[in-house]
Amino acid sequence: MNDLKRCVLIGAGNVATHMGKALKNSGVDIVQVYSRTFDHAHILAEVLDADPVNTLEAITTKADIFIMAVKDDVLASIANDLNLNDSLCVHTAGSIEMDVLESMSANHGVFYPLQTFSKQRNVDFSRVPLLIQGSNIDVETKLLHLGRGLSNKVIKADSKQRKAVHLAAVFACNFVNHMFTISDEILRENQMDFSILYSLIQETVDKAVNMSPVNAQTGPAKRNDRKVMDAHLEAIHKKSGIEEIYATISEHIYKYYIEKR
Amino acid sequence: MNDLKRCVLIGAGNVATHMGKALKNSGVDIVQVYSRTFDHAHILAEVLDADPVNTLEAITTKADIFIMAVKDDVLASIANDLNLNDSLCVHTAGSIEMDVLESMSANHGVFYPLQTFSKQRNVDFSRVPLLIQGSNIDVETKLLHLGRGLSNKVIKADSKQRKAVHLAAVFACNFVNHMFTISDEILRENQMDFSILYSLIQETVDKAVNMSPVNAQTGPAKRNDRKVMDAHLEAIHKKSGIEEIYATISEHIYKYYIEKR
Repeated sequence: MNDLKRCVLIGAGNVATHMGKALKNSGVDIVQVYSRTFDHAHILAEVLDADPVNTLEAITTKADIFIMAVKDDVLASIANDLNLNDSLCVHTAGSIEMDVLESMSANHGVFYPLQTFSKQRNVDFSRVPLLIQGSNIDVETKLLHLGRGLSNKVIKADSKQRKAVHLAAVFACNFVNHMFTISDEILRENQMDFSILYSLIQETVDKAVNMSPVNAQTGPAKRNDRKVMDAHLEAIHKKSGIEEIYATISEHIYKYYIEKR
Repeated sequence: MNDLKRCVLIGAGNVATHMGKALKNSGVDIVQVYSRTFDHAHILAEVLDADPVNTLEAITTKADIFIMAVKDDVLASIANDLNLNDSLCVHTAGSIEMDVLESMSANHGVFYPLQTFSKQRNVDFSRVPLLIQGSNIDVETKLLHLGRGLSNKVIKADSKQRKAVHLAAVFACNFVNHMFTISDEILRENQMDFSILYSLIQETVDKAVNMSPVNAQTGPAKRNDRKVMDAHLEAIHKKSGIEEIYATISEHIYKYYIEKR
C-alpha cells in the first residue's frame, strides 16, 4: 500500500519532468510544481495537471511527500529556507548526503533514479533503478512502496553506496560517452561515419553484461602490443589531449592485466 | 556473382573461426584450415568440413582466395615465407597496411571485419561491417561480392581510413570496456552489483546513436562541477591509476565543451 498520494515537486528540470510523469502514471497526484522560473513551473505543471508556483511561501503544506529535484547548490539553499515540520521530504541527487534535508524535516530521505535524462527522450521508468534511503524505518518503508510503483528495481543504499554508484555511473556513462565522442571525431576526420561502430558498440555492451567487463577486455593495451599502440599515438599526437587520454587508459589497462597475461 | 568458391583459411583463432563459419554459411567451400598448432587447425577444420594443415608447404594452390586471419607479427612472417603466385590473398587486420601481402601475390587485399570476437559468443555476421581494400579493381570487385554474401555493411576503405576505424574502435570498444571494469570494481567495493548500471549503459549507447555523442554528453566534468569532481577524486585517491584516468578524461571533457557552456 502506498500512503503517499499527494506530492509536491520542487524543480522542473529533466529529473523532475521524468519522475513527475512516472509518479502521475503510478497514480500519485502531483499537486504543485515549484520552480524559481515561473515559466518552467508552468510548463511542467500543465503536463502533470498540477499548480505552478515560483515562491517557497506558495508551497502547500497539504502534501504527503515533497520531492526536491533541483541542482545541487539550489538544494542546499532551499533546504535552508524551507521548513516542512515533520512532512516527508526527499532529494533525488546521487552525490549529496541525505542529511542536507535534516533542517527541513525529521522525516527525510533520498529517492535517486539512476539514469541519464534528456528532455527530448522518453524513458521507461520501470527499468530505472531507484536508490532509496530514509532517516528512519517508517520513511524507508514508505519510499520503498512508492518506488515499487515506478520501477522494477528499487534498492536500499546508504549515502556511501549511493555516492559510489554515482561515481561508477560517471565512468560507465559520462566517460563512455566521451570515448564515443572521440571515436566520432577520428572517423569524421577520415570521411567515415560513427554509425560504422554501432554493431561493435552494442556487442561491447552485451559482452560486458554477459561475461562481466574484466573478462571481456581485448585490444592492444591488454596484450601489450606496443607496435600498434605507438602507431595509434603517432596518429593522434597532434590532437590536443587525446594522446594523453590514450596513453593514460592504455597504461592502466596494461598494468591491470599484467598478472593475467 | 561470387567467383570465390574455394577458400583456404590461414589461422584458427577468433576471427578465423567466426569468419570461416560465416563464409561456409554463405556457400563458400573452406578447403583447408592452416595453423602452426595442428590441434587448433583440426578443431576448426572439423567445424568447417575442411582439411587441417600445420605447414605452409601443405597449403594447396587450388583455391580462389586465401584469407589470413592470424596475429599481426605472424602475418608478416607468413607473408615472407609463402608465395601464392597470382592467387587472391587478403588479411583481416585493422591496423596493418595492405602492402604487407605484396610479396605473396600481385592480387592482394584486405577483408577487415569490425567486431570484437570471442570464441564463446555467437556473432550475427550480417551486422558486422566489412572494410574492403584491393590491390586492383578486379580484386576489389571480387571482395565486395564476397563481402556482400556475409554482411549487410560492406565498405571500401583505404589503409589510412581502416587504421582510423581501428583507432576509433579502441576508444569505442576497448576503452569503453575498461570504463565498465572500473565501474564494476567501484561498485563491488561498496557491496553493489554492476547490473545496477545496465539500464544506464544501454540508454547511454542509445543516446549516442540517436543524438550523436557530442550532443549526449552530461555529467560533472561537462558542467565544470568542481565540488562533485573533487569529491570523486577524494573517493578514489588511493586507487592506483584510476584517479589519473578520472582527472585526465574530466579535464578533456571540460575543455571540449568550454565554448558550448
